[in-house]
Amino acid sequence: MKLGVLISGRGSNLQALLAAKKEERLPLADFRLAVSNKPDAPGLDIARSFGLRTAVIDGSKYRGRRAEHDRAIDQVLREHECEAIVLAGYMRVLGAEFIAGWRNRIINIHPSLLPSFPGLHAQRQALEYGVRTSGCTVHFVDEGTDTGPIILQRTVPVLPGDTEDSLAARILVEEHHAIVEAVALLSQGRVNIEGRSVRVSSGGRVG
Amino acid sequence: MKLGVLISGRGSNLQALLAAKKEERLPLADFRLAVSNKPDAPGLDIARSFGLRTAVIDGSKYRGRRAEHDRAIDQVLREHECEAIVLAGYMRVLGAEFIAGWRNRIINIHPSLLPSFPGLHAQRQALEYGVRTSGCTVHFVDEGTDTGPIILQRTVPVLPGDTEDSLAARILVEEHHAIVEAVALLSQGRVNIEGRSVRVSSGGRVG
Repeated sequence: MKLGVLISGRGSNLQALLAAKKEERLPLADFRLAVSNKPDAPGLDIARSFGLRTAVIDGSKYRGRRAEHDRAIDQVLREHECEAIVLAGYMRVLGAEFIAGWRNRIINIHPSLLPSFPGLHAQRQALEYGVRTSGCTVHFVDEGTDTGPIILQRTVPVLPGDTEDSLAARILVEEHHAIVEAVALLSQGRVNIEGRSVRVSSGGRVG
Repeated sequence: MKLGVLISGRGSNLQALLAAKKEERLPLADFRLAVSNKPDAPGLDIARSFGLRTAVIDGSKYRGRRAEHDRAIDQVLREHECEAIVLAGYMRVLGAEFIAGWRNRIINIHPSLLPSFPGLHAQRQALEYGVRTSGCTVHFVDEGTDTGPIILQRTVPVLPGDTEDSLAARILVEEHHAIVEAVALLSQGRVNIEGRSVRVSSGGRVG
């Protein structure tokens, strides 16, 4: 499965994916390129260090013209023959038209146990609410904010004295496992959407 | 700490508490009585089998007069010198006046990872949403529906083929652990509310 990865920042989930690929844990995932909406995203260097092509579709040049920005991203992904998209810390909202064009082919990783704490600053939301357990969720992207069908979730405890940073770091460790596992399942064709439920078919060993 | 337990049904969480008490795992919890809003709640027999006093404040005799029902419950709890209340599958909504009279002294157990899936049929809500992880939450009761400060949470996986019953049964096992642990902490005076966060102070061994 040919995959494009969208990033905005440090790209640690991209790094987890590329490291897993290098270690031959994702034999069926063919990463075609990383696309950043920010020209200075450190994740671009990570992509290059793994020999992955990069593209920058600078969001600041498309202010107020999201649909055009989306179309530029769509174009570069299709030029590279991508079949699915991984949002790995991509911080710009994708429009409904883009999402419809990639229906059930965009996955996102979110740092909470959805449906709790969708949207920005999920870790801060969790701390302010006072939950004892949080985690991360890999889900398909639909038109809502972090509302799409869930592929998998991993949990972490919220500990006494946690700050937003300490909780985010603990969740990030699980994100790296979760995104690799989700891309493995997806690339093996084992992820089936039924309504808003995701069924993961038990695959034999692949690769 | 003198405790009253409110039930409506089978009373399996009450049973977990009384069994833990019998096994001397809750040395500082002094269960004073179980109160049911239903005269035929099987939990009443469980209470009696452990030698616990019971009271029935029959909700059906107070239709449209919730405040009166609440006052009758309040009275019997105070007659038995209760200092705090455990809602163990209590299915009737308590009014704001009652809650204010027991501010930060009522705990409830809810079969989801709040704030996801508050209210009725939490397990069904979780299945319909398609989460991969659920669990239970012990929290203080405030005027909202399952919105009060969280004491602890325990997680369970949602498995392929789960029904409402199978998921509920898996969560219930964790509820029994969670309610005992929460009452242990509460009775040891180790649960401190700060805003909407709960701080659990590290206690030495008690009892």
